[in-house]
Amino acid sequence: MSDVKAVLAHAAARREDSRARWFEWLRIPSVSAQPQHAPDCRRAAEWLRAQLAGLGFEADIRETAGHPVVIAHHPGPTGTGPHLLFYGHYDVQPPEPLDLWTSPPFEPVLTEGPNGPRAVARGAVDDKGQVMTWLEALRFWHEAAGGPPCAITVVVEGEEEVGSKHLPDFLEAHAEALGDADIVVISDSNMWDVATPSIVTSVRGLVYTQVDITAANKDLHSGLFGGSALNPINLLTRILGDLKDEGGSILIPGFYDGVQEISAERRAQWDALEFDEAAFLADVGLSVPAGEVGRSALERMWSRPTADVNGIWGGYMGEGAKTVIPSEAHAKVSFRLVAGQSPAKVIAGFRDFILDRLPDDAQVKIQVFMHGEGFEIPSDNPFVHAAQAALAEQFGRPAVLQGGAGSLPVVEQIKQVIGLDCLLVGFGLNDDQVHSPNEKFDVVCFERGIDSHIRMLDAFARVR
Amino acid sequence: MSDVKAVLAHAAARREDSRARWFEWLRIPSVSAQPQHAPDCRRAAEWLRAQLAGLGFEADIRETAGHPVVIAHHPGPTGTGPHLLFYGHYDVQPPEPLDLWTSPPFEPVLTEGPNGPRAVARGAVDDKGQVMTWLEALRFWHEAAGGPPCAITVVVEGEEEVGSKHLPDFLEAHAEALGDADIVVISDSNMWDVATPSIVTSVRGLVYTQVDITAANKDLHSGLFGGSALNPINLLTRILGDLKDEGGSILIPGFYDGVQEISAERRAQWDALEFDEAAFLADVGLSVPAGEVGRSALERMWSRPTADVNGIWGGYMGEGAKTVIPSEAHAKVSFRLVAGQSPAKVIAGFRDFILDRLPDDAQVKIQVFMHGEGFEIPSDNPFVHAAQAALAEQFGRPAVLQGGAGSLPVVEQIKQVIGLDCLLVGFGLNDDQVHSPNEKFDVVCFERGIDSHIRMLDAFARVR
Repeated sequence: MSDVKAVLAHAAARREDSRARWFEWLRIPSVSAQPQHAPDCRRAAEWLRAQLAGLGFEADIRETAGHPVVIAHHPGPTGTGPHLLFYGHYDVQPPEPLDLWTSPPFEPVLTEGPNGPRAVARGAVDDKGQVMTWLEALRFWHEAAGGPPCAITVVVEGEEEVGSKHLPDFLEAHAEALGDADIVVISDSNMWDVATPSIVTSVRGLVYTQVDITAANKDLHSGLFGGSALNPINLLTRILGDLKDEGGSILIPGFYDGVQEISAERRAQWDALEFDEAAFLADVGLSVPAGEVGRSALERMWSRPTADVNGIWGGYMGEGAKTVIPSEAHAKVSFRLVAGQSPAKVIAGFRDFILDRLPDDAQVKIQVFMHGEGFEIPSDNPFVHAAQAALAEQFGRPAVLQGGAGSLPVVEQIKQVIGLDCLLVGFGLNDDQVHSPNEKFDVVCFERGIDSHIRMLDAFARVR
Repeated sequence: MSDVKAVLAHAAARREDSRARWFEWLRIPSVSAQPQHAPDCRRAAEWLRAQLAGLGFEADIRETAGHPVVIAHHPGPTGTGPHLLFYGHYDVQPPEPLDLWTSPPFEPVLTEGPNGPRAVARGAVDDKGQVMTWLEALRFWHEAAGGPPCAITVVVEGEEEVGSKHLPDFLEAHAEALGDADIVVISDSNMWDVATPSIVTSVRGLVYTQVDITAANKDLHSGLFGGSALNPINLLTRILGDLKDEGGSILIPGFYDGVQEISAERRAQWDALEFDEAAFLADVGLSVPAGEVGRSALERMWSRPTADVNGIWGGYMGEGAKTVIPSEAHAKVSFRLVAGQSPAKVIAGFRDFILDRLPDDAQVKIQVFMHGEGFEIPSDNPFVHAAQAALAEQFGRPAVLQGGAGSLPVVEQIKQVIGLDCLLVGFGLNDDQVHSPNEKFDVVCFERGIDSHIRMLDAFARVR
């Protein structure tokens, strides 16, 4: 029997133990946003540190200006194999509103669902449950094969749900040790469906701005000044109304610089998924796809940048009528970016786009609240191929190579600070109620996640 | 000595008495907006009724659902002369903030200004002081010539500062008697400057709307739905950004229907005023005229319609960033109209303009808070000519025939309900601090106003 088969057999024989450990961790209410749970965050970190130490890792708790980070290392078998860096987070979202939970959020229970039993608790999947899938894989490699098949470093932070604000400093401080790794493996995403695994190969970046336009030095009477004084709301609507053409293309000069068309192969694969955009939109009361005409829903969602006005305000917003020409108008405007686009260039282009439309009497201030690049793992990355092979073995069907819809700042931080690509392989499902009451993780997904990580460790170790 | 000269001489000899009566009325704090001043409003009405009764008028207080109206009639000399209807209001704006007044608002005092003494008090000019100019003229005609030279009806309401909401019902109820008049005379406007009288021959109307656009049935995550879901703020900015072309012309089809170009004569007259738009704009921190290119400032202000977004809101308006695609977006949009434009047609045109740009997934609701026609007194109205002649005699220079910048709903109500044109001849100045602390009326304006009304009564009586 090969190592991997022995490890899989060992894992299969110990499902109850895996579940017990998972539930034990879930019982620690490590809510990072709530100061009263700071000791619980530390307990959750310490619990994980102890687990890793028990698996032969050199494991430590490192302080930050916020909640501590668990860092651990196992040299693996001596030799020249690859070095993997596993990232995860032990903190969870606040459970409120509590009255919508069917059982207490920090007392995990099994209930029955369409895919069999599921664990219900805050953190069941995000991210404790997902971290457990690779932690248990490492455990079974340790117990059945004497240790992981290659060098492993683990970084699990406690502030992902509050913006990972101390992670860049941590990565910076440990850049030398961490930068020695070849790939970062993260389980914090979903499968395509319960039978189909998924690798997220790209994540969109984000530029988020606030545009403040001012004109007169006070609010004016529209009777006296209408037709003479610049109205900053009219101006702002004129500028923002120009952002896209009829076909939904964004008209900021240079905006699409660096945006790559997806390959014919990728397009065919996405088309084959037969994503039901009509159902996706109907769920929120819509029926007509917005965005760029002539591109599929998945293409728009995964591989194309966007421009959205997220908020707008100015002038009179109360009941009834007030005949004012206001002195100011404001908007929040954000852009989802894909790999290849430069956030700095998009910001500069947007600024020029506004300035080109700004009459002499108006002043504009542009604040930038977020600016992160899009990320795409190179299609020839050998760890992607290794993961594809392992997942195909596990599920009997190929993994979907998909884009991520939201932005994952941590992926960009890792790329920026330690120069590593992230391989995003998660085992959640879309109905897991992440961040909502009754968060759950199907046991079948949890167990397939463990087995997938056992197989991926084997496959990764063979990458040369 | 002609009647009018005798009356003028009589008035000139009694300046102190006129001022004493004016101050007596100003001491009654008839603040219509403040319920505790309801008895004062009634006192101010009763004071006026008694004055009119003392001048040979049949004078009454008529109840409304709000503050009472003073109505009075004098048949004038028997014969077939014209019948004048004087309109005014005895209510005043609240005086707050009190700490900005240099003297108590209801204790009128004389202070010295560039044009000599001025009376400082709430209502000094708006509208008690202006009503006093024609009331004193009627008094001196009564005392020096036995009565007014033609039939006079007086209507003075107590709710102008709170929207005249019961006036239309009152006019309706007295339509037959009031409709017998030939012209309505109102003193509630300003002179061009202290040496130059002015007749306001047109007043802009107003359509004030709220546009509510809804799309998805809830707020959406811009990462997941960006590029798929309709963003109602993007849509709203697109619609409102289309309202005007580069030259400031309003692009709603049919919007300019009925708008007349001003005559060459009127244009020459306005150009001769050499209005200093640069100074007008500099006062509020602006330097470049907005509005329709190729038209003078006064033309834009007095004879052209406008479109302004008075308020806008939707989505996230707080600090920092929230990546939301909101379900709703809202705007307040108003139009100043000139005579000849139909408010109903403008509203319908605006609705179509929006609907033409509305994709299937968006719903729009358009609320109309105000809709009033613009007004223009026909240029051949004989009372305008009579007033011009009288004012030229008084001031030694011709009156400016100007447009009104703001909207005066009462002018439209009078036209609509009793079918009469209004002749707007007022004696205020632009620095009178109307509605603000330290409202004032220059004594020289007050006295020239009395004398002008004495002369206009004579001139009006000769209109056949």
